Amino acid sequence: MKSLLVATLALVPLTAVQETPGPAPEVEAYRQTVRDILSEALVRGEAYAKLSELVEVAPHRLSGSPGAAAAVEWARQAMLEDGLENVRLEPCMVTHWERGETERLRVVAPPELAGLELPILALGGSIATPEHGLIAEVVEVQDFDELKELGEGAKGKIVFFNRPMDATLLSTFPAYGGAVGQRVNGAAEAARVGGVAALVRSMTTRLDDFPHTGAMRYVDGVKKVPTAAVSTRGAELIAGLLEKGETVKLQLELDCKNFPPAPSFNVIGELVGREKPEEIVVLGGHLDSWDVGQGAHDDGGPCCQTIEAVRLLKKLGLRPRRTLRVIMFMNEENGLGGAKAYYADHKDEMPNHVFAVESDSGAFTPRGFQSNANPEAMKVLRDIAMLFEGTGGERVVHGGGGADVSPMKASGVIVGSYLPDSQRYFDLHHSERDTIDQVSPREIELGAGLIASLVYVIADLEERLPHNPVPE
Amino acid sequence: MKSLLVATLALVPLTAVQETPGPAPEVEAYRQTVRDILSEALVRGEAYAKLSELVEVAPHRLSGSPGAAAAVEWARQAMLEDGLENVRLEPCMVTHWERGETERLRVVAPPELAGLELPILALGGSIATPEHGLIAEVVEVQDFDELKELGEGAKGKIVFFNRPMDATLLSTFPAYGGAVGQRVNGAAEAARVGGVAALVRSMTTRLDDFPHTGAMRYVDGVKKVPTAAVSTRGAELIAGLLEKGETVKLQLELDCKNFPPAPSFNVIGELVGREKPEEIVVLGGHLDSWDVGQGAHDDGGPCCQTIEAVRLLKKLGLRPRRTLRVIMFMNEENGLGGAKAYYADHKDEMPNHVFAVESDSGAFTPRGFQSNANPEAMKVLRDIAMLFEGTGGERVVHGGGGADVSPMKASGVIVGSYLPDSQRYFDLHHSERDTIDQVSPREIELGAGLIASLVYVIADLEERLPHNPVPE
Repeated sequence: MKSLLVATLALVPLTAVQETPGPAPEVEAYRQTVRDILSEALVRGEAYAKLSELVEVAPHRLSGSPGAAAAVEWARQAMLEDGLENVRLEPCMVTHWERGETERLRVVAPPELAGLELPILALGGSIATPEHGLIAEVVEVQDFDELKELGEGAKGKIVFFNRPMDATLLSTFPAYGGAVGQRVNGAAEAARVGGVAALVRSMTTRLDDFPHTGAMRYVDGVKKVPTAAVSTRGAELIAGLLEKGETVKLQLELDCKNFPPAPSFNVIGELVGREKPEEIVVLGGHLDSWDVGQGAHDDGGPCCQTIEAVRLLKKLGLRPRRTLRVIMFMNEENGLGGAKAYYADHKDEMPNHVFAVESDSGAFTPRGFQSNANPEAMKVLRDIAMLFEGTGGERVVHGGGGADVSPMKASGVIVGSYLPDSQRYFDLHHSERDTIDQVSPREIELGAGLIASLVYVIADLEERLPHNPVPE
Repeated sequence: MKSLLVATLALVPLTAVQETPGPAPEVEAYRQTVRDILSEALVRGEAYAKLSELVEVAPHRLSGSPGAAAAVEWARQAMLEDGLENVRLEPCMVTHWERGETERLRVVAPPELAGLELPILALGGSIATPEHGLIAEVVEVQDFDELKELGEGAKGKIVFFNRPMDATLLSTFPAYGGAVGQRVNGAAEAARVGGVAALVRSMTTRLDDFPHTGAMRYVDGVKKVPTAAVSTRGAELIAGLLEKGETVKLQLELDCKNFPPAPSFNVIGELVGREKPEEIVVLGGHLDSWDVGQGAHDDGGPCCQTIEAVRLLKKLGLRPRRTLRVIMFMNEENGLGGAKAYYADHKDEMPNHVFAVESDSGAFTPRGFQSNANPEAMKVLRDIAMLFEGTGGERVVHGGGGADVSPMKASGVIVGSYLPDSQRYFDLHHSERDTIDQVSPREIELGAGLIASLVYVIADLEERLPHNPVPE
């Protein structure tokens, strides 16, 4: 009978099966609840209002800064106001770097452009230049292989990493992933071949005058050289001169500074589960941001979405079986101090961490979620996402969780990310343009509703999601 | 065997069929071509650059205005520059209304707010008030039924239509559809019960100080009274006073004016088909806009997407079997003069109009297309949309075409619309906020690539889409 079944199925064109199967009955049972959550979010949601407060109280929230401290206190109060339970600060140590007052890139040669300033931002972690800057010739490369081939050719020069993000990729995240190595490792790689500084094309597909900062890393045993990102128009100008055969000399001045690690906090609040309070579903974002713009999409808005998600549930009287734990992580941008501390301090609890979702891809219109869930758990996640029909957020794709929840993978915790539309993200990311006027109230509230719905159903289903296998 | 097959199929859970069927082979053959079009659009697309020109040359393009005339000439030149063929102006008659210099809504009572001005925009088509305005008490209603029940209660008053768009609807278009009747017919309905003016809550789910204009219609035999839209915050203020039992008196001043119909043009260009030039696939948008903001999303950006779509194809050397005809329609906002003229002048050609798609829902990130195609043609459209995997624009839903292509339905032409994400549209629509800084370069170019891909495959497939039945 079995082989016959296979044979007959093979004869049926796949297109004959037109009906999309619905979710399993135990998930289907939440359809109206999800609808109620989304309606509440769209009509009376407060994620945007929260973000308005946050970016006013603490527009710049770089780890170790007064802004970050203000954000911690704001988040604590916001959770208390929303009636979250067990609101607390949990200590962590964070990277502490300051931009300083001066950052300047000035053309020295060709002489007809001498004095022209190009927009730059020092990269987070960079050392300063000598007091009046350094002046050197520029050599352009597209990648580290090309740099190595230069050999002596880079010695004494400013190495200019100019490989753009691949704009043909339909999601901008892989495009970022394919280019950001230049920013993170450019200084170390430049120094290995005798370069005196690294200048990196900003990580955006947009052509404009806004430089985009971000983290960089020095390597033990390799000389530290200063490094900055130049706007894409600035990068095009330099590249254009070099292409014409001009000798380009630039003066780079930075007075940024690294300090010893500083104490800070993750901010945590809960909605304690009504039946299985020891089982935990984590949702959160990172409270720190870069020190330019307002970090409205990265990651202020998404942080507010996760606090708001719990407020929505409370407002609707929805207390799930399991505990929802909202975590505002500190220091995602340049050290993951908060994520590491949370994992270390809660390692014993990891078998009870059912799911951990981070919202750290902007607060744009929804596209779905991403998770590393095992097949059985993935089936449940996808069933839940079917309840999101019409929002644009109905898909759950395979992929990692946000950086802050990633350490938990080592204990088999299923992690995930909220996935909004990615087209606009890198127009703003880590730049002066990441401000609240770039956030749509409906988009941020709809996302909050989806996150609330996802974590509520996961935390409330009678059967818990089966843990991922613990990696060897 | 047949009954056994049915029986065995019934035993197989639908979830067992995991594989999504791919497109038919003749459509699958275009996969790489579509990828090439999208890549070209994302890397070297010029829709955004076109829009930058258009909103500089003619930010305000209301039918019958000098701006509209400038836009016509701009579009003609843009098509010529892009190498479109048979570029021409086709005459039409359009509505001509001017806003005038004065539009003001001032609180007269309660006395403690006297003198406060609330942000308004006259509705397109409204008559003026008497020279120094009219002063009257306000009566609020949610709909026309409530207005009728008021009976004498509305006599001599300003009727205030304050039903908000239903924010719980996941797409904002039905939410607009459910509220816009107040704007279109509010003045006539108010006049029927003796109202002296109609004031309408702006058509947006956002709470802010930007009024949104739009078309209204008088009814033969019913007195004409002036009408305007008030910002949502203004609406909330009035409603709040009324709810407290205050008597609200307002002074409304408008000096807008209707003029006789004026001559104008649709702008048309083609990419003539290589095998079946007489068979036509139409794509387009409407070149006219309201006289506030820049009409960047409505409908400047989408217009530029359709001109750009053909440029992309030419750039890639892709000349389809059938003719692509780009139409920049005039007067969509307040009369459809261009659409009516096109249909009347090309009625004989309609059996050869294979498909007509309009882009008039903004230039946001893609969600797909909508069409009234018959089932056989819909299958082809959906097969084509499968090639858009990863763009977010993979869906084709049942629905009408844009307003400008709708007259063609009477001849059985299959019409359609490009559907971008709708969340932000009514934040901007018909207001000062509809400016180019609200347009994302990647989003507009990606949409242009999708439109180019859709019309190219439709125009190039060996077999033409089967015509819809001609309605009785």
